[in-house]
Amino acid sequence: MTESPRSPPGVEAASLDALVAQTLGAATAAELSTVLPPLVRDVADIDWRLNQVLGSTYAQLTEAARYACSTGGKRVRPLLMAAAHRALGAESTGPIHSLAAAFQLIHTATLVHDDVIDHSETRRGRPSMPRTFGMPLAIVTGDYLFVRAFELAADYPKSIILRCGEACADLVEGEVIQEASRFDLSSGREHYFRVVERKTAAIIAAALASVAEFCEKSAVVINALEMYGKALGIAFQIRDDLLDVYGDPDLLGKPLFTDLREGNPTLLSLAAYSQLDARHQSEFESLFQLRRKRTKHLLRLKELTDLTDAATTVAAEATTWTDRAVRSLDPIPEGPYRQLLERLAHGAAERRF
Amino acid sequence: MTESPRSPPGVEAASLDALVAQTLGAATAAELSTVLPPLVRDVADIDWRLNQVLGSTYAQLTEAARYACSTGGKRVRPLLMAAAHRALGAESTGPIHSLAAAFQLIHTATLVHDDVIDHSETRRGRPSMPRTFGMPLAIVTGDYLFVRAFELAADYPKSIILRCGEACADLVEGEVIQEASRFDLSSGREHYFRVVERKTAAIIAAALASVAEFCEKSAVVINALEMYGKALGIAFQIRDDLLDVYGDPDLLGKPLFTDLREGNPTLLSLAAYSQLDARHQSEFESLFQLRRKRTKHLLRLKELTDLTDAATTVAAEATTWTDRAVRSLDPIPEGPYRQLLERLAHGAAERRF
Repeated sequence: MTESPRSPPGVEAASLDALVAQTLGAATAAELSTVLPPLVRDVADIDWRLNQVLGSTYAQLTEAARYACSTGGKRVRPLLMAAAHRALGAESTGPIHSLAAAFQLIHTATLVHDDVIDHSETRRGRPSMPRTFGMPLAIVTGDYLFVRAFELAADYPKSIILRCGEACADLVEGEVIQEASRFDLSSGREHYFRVVERKTAAIIAAALASVAEFCEKSAVVINALEMYGKALGIAFQIRDDLLDVYGDPDLLGKPLFTDLREGNPTLLSLAAYSQLDARHQSEFESLFQLRRKRTKHLLRLKELTDLTDAATTVAAEATTWTDRAVRSLDPIPEGPYRQLLERLAHGAAERRF
Repeated sequence: MTESPRSPPGVEAASLDALVAQTLGAATAAELSTVLPPLVRDVADIDWRLNQVLGSTYAQLTEAARYACSTGGKRVRPLLMAAAHRALGAESTGPIHSLAAAFQLIHTATLVHDDVIDHSETRRGRPSMPRTFGMPLAIVTGDYLFVRAFELAADYPKSIILRCGEACADLVEGEVIQEASRFDLSSGREHYFRVVERKTAAIIAAALASVAEFCEKSAVVINALEMYGKALGIAFQIRDDLLDVYGDPDLLGKPLFTDLREGNPTLLSLAAYSQLDARHQSEFESLFQLRRKRTKHLLRLKELTDLTDAATTVAAEATTWTDRAVRSLDPIPEGPYRQLLERLAHGAAERRF
């Protein structure tokens, strides 16, 4: 594997500190202040590993791959994996750094390809990969991230490599079935959850289950973390649906109404649609089905959503998944790291960015 | 891994038989007729394994992935791997079927993404993936093929998985540096070989080296097959360059002049350009640099090429690489399978499709 002899550009520990605190909320960050410093170091080390493995002999490829990762957002996955590893008793998370980097790379690869598919202009407040490097380089950089992820995973037992692979296959399946339901509000809730389980939840569940499996924990513990990851992922996605309409675009680093524009039936749009009276329902559907929506169409869709309880019921549903995530943690030893995992589950359903 | 309970649609042994005979040429096929039946069975079994692993719970994804593989052309890679395995003394190639399927999937994945990047309409006589399934599904199907390839590779030792990964990284690097030299005839021969080594030769070299490594052969044997694969890959690519201008589009299953149209500097266009007099050289360059070429431009580029010896010198260069490939086989035990590998090297530089 080509590795740069010098230290790759990592994220400053100080800025990660702020990022983790922001993810958790100030109150929780203060409450858990004793356990945060090692976790922030873990995340910084995982970031370092990730940047290191992206070194290619071709500067342009290295640059593109690192750019894709530098818009790496909240580092939720590495944080979850490090916290889970410590919750299971690990003194040092070093042995799972490559694994965490692999999962983060897979996540990033799919975001890059998503941005090509959706013609997205921005990602986390910066120009998207296809916008910055062009479509061809964005596609092959996504491939490159996948490849480096599997090289990192090759350090682990076959069962863990296969968990990685199955999560990737789930991701792809999620893309395919989401594509099949574009602009189609009749696809319904069941279809929505099929998409979310595959596109968002499967990879988080696999990442956490891999950590437990790596620690040679019992099936009960592996399943507990898998269920936790899945429920947290679903809560996270439902919150995403809400933020797409009610979020602050500056905090989100991307424009609002992306799902509405792209015709992705979210839990919010499905709830609004089902709660509207017949006349508004048909207006909502016509607007939702428009392949090219103007701002006035998007604002009208929001107005129609506001006529219903959808935002409230959907927020409650996110909280239900958070509760499931927290309950799943029962077999995990109590302590500050489990507490952190609980707070992260709440954060998934409450976050503003 | 999701596997279909029924047999996946494989390719008929009879049609593979014909395909292998066609690849080798009638005379060689007759001469080697005793060793061909087991190899045709090997290739059919590898095809079966490949189709089996592509089974997804989503019919559309399975269909897209199998479509991508069904345009699987000459099966040169599986044939090479099976022949190498038998040349090294294997009685049965069963143990490398998953590995061969993995390499074939990686090759196919990159072709699918290439077709998205190049907006190709046809591939081996059939509508291309993006044309048939749309750009979004083509991108994610490519990802899916990569993922299934790595799942297959997970059956093998880490060093072989890493060979697979490095070959993929090389492929991506090849794409990146090729992209950088589009429409640029000054990029030169050295750059051309850098691209070809990565885009075409690395994966064939890695596939063959993996077989030797799997058989726990000495470094001499591993290197021999690696060098053979690399030289054959380069001969194959140079022949491809020639066929793009002088081939029969019906036999090739794709239109001529793709490289000229896309502005990829081939060994042929570089040779023609360097051999022309100043006036024609500047005409050649102007036409080559056109982003949108009409048929008359392409035909004029061919006419200018015909003013030179380029076709002859480039064909001779392909033969030089074939000779290197054959010489690399020295450490491989003599016998009909080594003979077949030699014939396949000649075929790479002489093939008409």
